[in-house]
Amino acid sequence: MSSCYGKNVKISIFGQSHSEAIGVVIDGLPWGFQPDMQALSDFMTRRAPGQNELGTARKEADRVEILSGLVNGKTCGAPLAAAIKNTNAHSADYENIMDIPRPGHADFTAHMKFGGCQDVSGGGHFSGRLTAPLCIAGAICKQILEREGICIGAHIDSVAGISDDKFNPMIVSAADFERVLANGFPVLNAEAGEKMRAAILAAKAEGDSVGGTVECAVTGLPAGLGDPMFDGMENRIAQIVFGIPAIKGIEFGNGFEAAALRGSENNDPYRMANGKIVTEGNNHGGILGGITSGMPLLFRVAVKPTPSIFKEQNSVSMSKNENAVLTVKGRHDPCIVQRVVPCVEAAAAIAVLDAWLDYKMYR
Amino acid sequence: MSSCYGKNVKISIFGQSHSEAIGVVIDGLPWGFQPDMQALSDFMTRRAPGQNELGTARKEADRVEILSGLVNGKTCGAPLAAAIKNTNAHSADYENIMDIPRPGHADFTAHMKFGGCQDVSGGGHFSGRLTAPLCIAGAICKQILEREGICIGAHIDSVAGISDDKFNPMIVSAADFERVLANGFPVLNAEAGEKMRAAILAAKAEGDSVGGTVECAVTGLPAGLGDPMFDGMENRIAQIVFGIPAIKGIEFGNGFEAAALRGSENNDPYRMANGKIVTEGNNHGGILGGITSGMPLLFRVAVKPTPSIFKEQNSVSMSKNENAVLTVKGRHDPCIVQRVVPCVEAAAAIAVLDAWLDYKMYR
Amino acid sequence: MSSCYGKNVKISIFGQSHSEAIGVVIDGLPWGFQPDMQALSDFMTRRAPGQNELGTARKEADRVEILSGLVNGKTCGAPLAAAIKNTNAHSADYENIMDIPRPGHADFTAHMKFGGCQDVSGGGHFSGRLTAPLCIAGAICKQILEREGICIGAHIDSVAGISDDKFNPMIVSAADFERVLANGFPVLNAEAGEKMRAAILAAKAEGDSVGGTVECAVTGLPAGLGDPMFDGMENRIAQIVFGIPAIKGIEFGNGFEAAALRGSENNDPYRMANGKIVTEGNNHGGILGGITSGMPLLFRVAVKPTPSIFKEQNSVSMSKNENAVLTVKGRHDPCIVQRVVPCVEAAAAIAVLDAWLDYKMYR
Amino acid sequence: MSSCYGKNVKISIFGQSHSEAIGVVIDGLPWGFQPDMQALSDFMTRRAPGQNELGTARKEADRVEILSGLVNGKTCGAPLAAAIKNTNAHSADYENIMDIPRPGHADFTAHMKFGGCQDVSGGGHFSGRLTAPLCIAGAICKQILEREGICIGAHIDSVAGISDDKFNPMIVSAADFERVLANGFPVLNAEAGEKMRAAILAAKAEGDSVGGTVECAVTGLPAGLGDPMFDGMENRIAQIVFGIPAIKGIEFGNGFEAAALRGSENNDPYRMANGKIVTEGNNHGGILGGITSGMPLLFRVAVKPTPSIFKEQNSVSMSKNENAVLTVKGRHDPCIVQRVVPCVEAAAAIAVLDAWLDYKMYR
Repeated sequence: MSSCYGKNVKISIFGQSHSEAIGVVIDGLPWGFQPDMQALSDFMTRRAPGQNELGTARKEADRVEILSGLVNGKTCGAPLAAAIKNTNAHSADYENIMDIPRPGHADFTAHMKFGGCQDVSGGGHFSGRLTAPLCIAGAICKQILEREGICIGAHIDSVAGISDDKFNPMIVSAADFERVLANGFPVLNAEAGEKMRAAILAAKAEGDSVGGTVECAVTGLPAGLGDPMFDGMENRIAQIVFGIPAIKGIEFGNGFEAAALRGSENNDPYRMANGKIVTEGNNHGGILGGITSGMPLLFRVAVKPTPSIFKEQNSVSMSKNENAVLTVKGRHDPCIVQRVVPCVEAAAAIAVLDAWLDYKMYR
Repeated sequence: MSSCYGKNVKISIFGQSHSEAIGVVIDGLPWGFQPDMQALSDFMTRRAPGQNELGTARKEADRVEILSGLVNGKTCGAPLAAAIKNTNAHSADYENIMDIPRPGHADFTAHMKFGGCQDVSGGGHFSGRLTAPLCIAGAICKQILEREGICIGAHIDSVAGISDDKFNPMIVSAADFERVLANGFPVLNAEAGEKMRAAILAAKAEGDSVGGTVECAVTGLPAGLGDPMFDGMENRIAQIVFGIPAIKGIEFGNGFEAAALRGSENNDPYRMANGKIVTEGNNHGGILGGITSGMPLLFRVAVKPTPSIFKEQNSVSMSKNENAVLTVKGRHDPCIVQRVVPCVEAAAAIAVLDAWLDYKMYR
Repeated sequence: MSSCYGKNVKISIFGQSHSEAIGVVIDGLPWGFQPDMQALSDFMTRRAPGQNELGTARKEADRVEILSGLVNGKTCGAPLAAAIKNTNAHSADYENIMDIPRPGHADFTAHMKFGGCQDVSGGGHFSGRLTAPLCIAGAICKQILEREGICIGAHIDSVAGISDDKFNPMIVSAADFERVLANGFPVLNAEAGEKMRAAILAAKAEGDSVGGTVECAVTGLPAGLGDPMFDGMENRIAQIVFGIPAIKGIEFGNGFEAAALRGSENNDPYRMANGKIVTEGNNHGGILGGITSGMPLLFRVAVKPTPSIFKEQNSVSMSKNENAVLTVKGRHDPCIVQRVVPCVEAAAAIAVLDAWLDYKMYR
Repeated sequence: MSSCYGKNVKISIFGQSHSEAIGVVIDGLPWGFQPDMQALSDFMTRRAPGQNELGTARKEADRVEILSGLVNGKTCGAPLAAAIKNTNAHSADYENIMDIPRPGHADFTAHMKFGGCQDVSGGGHFSGRLTAPLCIAGAICKQILEREGICIGAHIDSVAGISDDKFNPMIVSAADFERVLANGFPVLNAEAGEKMRAAILAAKAEGDSVGGTVECAVTGLPAGLGDPMFDGMENRIAQIVFGIPAIKGIEFGNGFEAAALRGSENNDPYRMANGKIVTEGNNHGGILGGITSGMPLLFRVAVKPTPSIFKEQNSVSMSKNENAVLTVKGRHDPCIVQRVVPCVEAAAAIAVLDAWLDYKMYR
C-alpha cells in the first residue's frame, strides 16, 4: 500500500476527502531554496474546485500550511511538510454509497481491498481532492526546476472529442505555457476552448459528464537525463501520473500513432543546428531508451469522464447482495480535465526533479 | 540508474547485447515452487530471434542456465539467478554507430548520459536482447500465478495499422491465450495475421520496418488487488512495461477512447451475477482506483517501428560535430511486435505477482 | 537524505525542534485496527520532557493530533498522519550555536552538510524532540503487534556505569515490562534505580551529563521472522535504532561478550520442551542468520551522555575560523537514557511490524 | 526477503554454498571506472578459505568472472555482474543437519522460515561463502572511493579475548592499512597476532572455535556525508554489516564505552588546525547526527565464535521431534575473524559509496 513516490525526493501523501487535513511530506528537497509562496498559491488555485460554472460547487480555500522544512522561508534540509485543513465536508451526501458503490469510482474496489474499513465519505483517500497535496509537492519541485532552466506546462488537449491545438513539439517553450495560463481556460486555441466549455455545460445540464486528454511538455532538459530500463523517464512519469485519479492512458511523443508508421517515417534523424545535435522531428517525445535527447519532452494522458454523474445508474447493494439503483448526491465536476492540467504538471515536476538529482549525482 | 524493479519480488537485470552473459537475479520468490523448465524454455522461444522469416537473422539458443535459487528443482528462498551466454555477437557490425547514432535508438542519448563510456556494440544494455532476462523472470512469476488461478496472455492487437480482433473484455480466459499460442503468429484472427505478415515482409523488402500494438489480459484476479495512488495496478504495470524497448504508450481498459465518452457511457454499472458482484461492461479494464475489480484486467501498449532500418538515414558524427549519413548494418527485425508479446506478458506477470504478495500480506 | 523508513509500513517523519509542528505519516498500516488513544498518550508521556527533576525544564503537552487515516477511530487503509504542535520554543537560546557549534552535537556536521541552510534552533531536525513522531508511529505498531501476542519492552540497563538487573533472556515476558512501567523510573531493580537517579542529579549539579545503556526485549515472536542478509532482524532493527539521536552502539544477544567465548560456550543447544523446539540458553538473542528462533529477541544499545552540557567547552567560530569558548544555553536533560527507553521500544515495534508483514506475505 | 542493498549503488547477491555459482549484480556504479582486476583478486584472496592452517580445509580458487558491465575494462553504465563457480562442494557432509540443526547456525531458523524448502547443503544462502560476492562488490566500491581519496581498512581488534592495538582515531591513515596487510595476519601488533594464532590453534585442537572483534576505519571523508535520521552513516553501515554472518554487535567511535562517561569527557571539542575545523578527540568516531565530521570514521564489530564446531552438541531431530546429539562434519574455520576483516571493509565501502553519491547529488 503506498501513497509514497520517489527515490531522492520522496513524497508521502496523506489524507481523505473528509479527514481533519490532507497534506504531504517531501523528504530530500535541495536545501537553500526559497519557494515562492504566491506562485504556490496560484498553482493551487488552478487545481482548486469551485473556480467557475464548469466545476463542482465545493469551494475550498485550500490554504496551504507549511508545518516544517523551512527556515526564514528557505528549505533547510529537513523534510518539508504541508497540510490543508478540510473545512467544507458534507459527509451526509455519501451515506448511500457506503452500501451502493458508484459505477466507475473506487467505492467497490476499495471496499473489497479494505474489507469495508475504508473511508467512504467523499471518496476517502481515493478522492480527487488528494491531488491537492500532489500539487503542493509538484509546485515546489517545478519552481526548483525552473531555477535550472527546466519548465513544465500542460494544456487541455481535448474535451468530449473537441481538440485543442498541439504544442509545437520542436519549439514549445515557457511562452506557450504562459499563453495557456493567460486564458481562463487552459487551452492554446480559444475557439476550441469555447466549444469545450459548451460541451461541458451541455453534459452538466443532463446530469452527465465528459472526459478528455491533457498534453504536457517539459522544456530545457539536457540530453542524458533518465536511467536505463525501469527508471527511464517514461517509467518514472507513468508511475506517478497514474496516481492521479481518472487517468487511464499515457503516451510519449507520437505514442500510439507511431504504431501505424514505418521506421523510416517514425525515426527522427539527427542534424547539427547551431553547433548542437538535435533531431529533425520529435516523434520520440524527447526520450529515447528512457533517456532525454535534449528535445522537448512530450506526453499525453487520457482522462476518463467524471464517474460521479447525477443520472440514475444501475448498481448493487453490497450488504444485501442484490441489484439496486443509485442516485449520486454530493458536488461533482461535470468535467475534471481542466483541473487535471496542473496535476499532470505537478506529477511531471516531481518525476523530473527526482531524475534530475540522479543525473547530478554522477557528474 | 536502475535495471531493478519490484518491492517483494525484486528483479535485477544485467548484461549487454555482446557481454559475456545476460541474466537476472530474482529476490523474494515464494519458496517451494517447482518451475516447469520446459514451459520456461517454450516461453523463451516465443521471444527468441530467428524464429522465422519475419525476424532478425541472429539465432541465439538462449539457453537459460540457473545459477542459484533452486534445490531439487524447487525454489528455496535464496535468490534465483539465471544467465544466458552470449554466443553469436557480431560486434564489428556496430563500429560506425559508435560515432554516428542511429535515429530512433538510444545510441545518442546513452552517449550523452554515459559520456561515451556506454557499450555501443549491439545496443549494449539498451538492446532488445535484454528482454530475455525479463522473460526469464516473467515466465517464472507467470507460472506461480497460474498456480493461484491467475492467467496472463497477450496477442498482437495491430501491426502496420492492420487490426486483430480484441479479447472479449468480459469473458477473456486462458482458452483464448492458448488459441493465440496455437497460431504460429500470436493473433486471434488468422486472416488478420496473414495481412500483418505480408505488411512486415513488404517493409522488410524495402529495408524498412513497421510497428504495432499489443493487447494483454490478466484473468482470475480477485477484487482488491493493488494499492492506492502510486502503487495501483496501472502504476505498477506501466512502470515495468516501459522497461521494454520501443514501447511508447499504454492504456488500460478503453483508455484513450474513454476520453471522448460521457460518464453515462463510460461507467460500468454493477450487477449481481451468480451471487457475485460484476460489472455490465469492462471499459475500466478491471481496475478502478488502482485496485482490481475482479473483472479481467486489460491493457494495450504501443510499439514503435524498429528504429534500426537499412535505408540510408540522416544523422551526425558526434566526434566531428557535422552532419553525416548512416547505413545501419547488423541483424534487425523489420517488426518486433510479435516478440514484444511475451515480453509484455512477462512484465505484467512480475508486476502482478509483486502486487499479489502485497495483497496476501494483509490477509 | 531520508527521514523515511520501512518497506511495508513506511514512516516519513517531519519537523524541527521549533517548526510549526512535528509529526509522521505512516503508510501501509493494517486496516480495521482501533488504536487505543489513551495508551498512545501514556506512551508519549514516557518520552515527554519535563516529567521530573531529572529532565529538561521544557514542558511540552505533546498532544498528538490525528490528521488522517482513521474512520470511526479505526485505521482505514489511508496513511495515518499525526502531528504535534510546537508550543514552547525558546529560539533565542540558540543564537550563539549558529556560529559556535556544540561539541558532540550535530551542529557542525549539519552545517557542513547543508551549507549553513540547516535549522539551528533547538537542534532543528536533529533534535531529540524528533523522537516524538517516532514514538507515535512506534506506539501504534506496538499495539498492533500486541494483538498478535507480540510484546515489546525496554528498561535502563545502566546509567553512569551503574547497572540494572537484566531481563531473563529465557523467560522475559510482558509481566516484566509492566514491572518496569510500574516504577516511576524504568528499571527492574529499584535500588539500582535510586543510585542512577543520584548519579544523574550529581552530574546535573555540576552542569554535566551522563550516558547509559538500554536493554530491549521482544517476546511472543514466532520462529521464522526476518529475511536473509540485509533484511534480517538485526539489520532492520539496527537501521532504525540508529535514527535515535545519541545511540552509538547496538548488540544482539550477548553481543560483544560473545567475541571472547568459545563456540562450545556460545552456541545455544536445542532441546524439546513441551513438544516445542527451544534453545537451552539465549546467547543468540533470539536471532540466528537474521531470522527469529522463537526465543525472546534481545538487544542492547549504548546511549552517549547528553552532549549539551552547561560547562564551558572549547569550540570554534565557524564564521571567523578561530577558536572560541562556548556556553550552552537552553533546556537540556542531564540524562536522556530514561527517555530513550520508549524510543527504543518504538523503533523496535516499527521494525518488527514491518518484518511481520513480510512474514505473513508468504504464508 | 532481501539480499539486496543500496539506494544508488544497488547490489543483489545470489547463490548458495553449493549452487552452480554465487555472485552479485551491482547496479548504479559510476561509469568510466577501470577496476584493477589484480587488486580485486588480491582482495578476494584475503577472504578466501584455505589460506593457512587457521582456516577451513575447503580450498576455492574463487575466480571472479565478470559477466557484464565492462567495456574495454571500464564500467559502462550497465549493471556489473560477477560470478564465482562453486567447484569444491561436499554436499554429503551436510546430510545430517537436514534434520538435526547445528546450534548457533541458521539451520533451524531457516527451516522454520522456509518450511523445509531451504538449501541445507553447506548452509545454503546463509553460508559464510556468500560473503564472497559481497567482497567483489566491496572491492570495486573501495577502488572507486580510493580515487576520491577515501580509504578503508580494518584489522582484527581481538580474538579470544586477546587484543590488538587500536587504530589511532585521530590520525589513522592508508599507511596503517598497508601495515596490516603486510602482516600475513591482519593485526597491528605482531606479538598480539602470535598469541591470537596460538589461541585459534588451541581451540582447533579441541574441535572448538573462537570469536573476536574487528575494527574498521574510513579516512579521507569530507565533513557532511550521510543523511538525517534513518540514512545516517551509522544506519547505513549497520544495515549492511549485519549482512555478514556471525556479526552480533556494532559500535561507532567509543560506542558502549561512551555510556559510562560524562558529557564533559565524551564530547570532542572543536579547534582550528591548519585553517580547518577539527575535533580534539575522536570519541564520536567521525559521525555526529549521522553525518561525517571530517575526522576518521571508526567502528567496531563483534564476531561470534564459529558455530560449526566438531565437539558433540545437543540438538533435536526436527522430523522426530525428539532430542538428539549432533556431530558436525564438513570443513569449518576454528576462527573466522581474520576472514571477516575484508568483509567488513567491503560492507563499509558499499555503504560509503552509496552515501557519497547522495552527497554529490546536492552539490
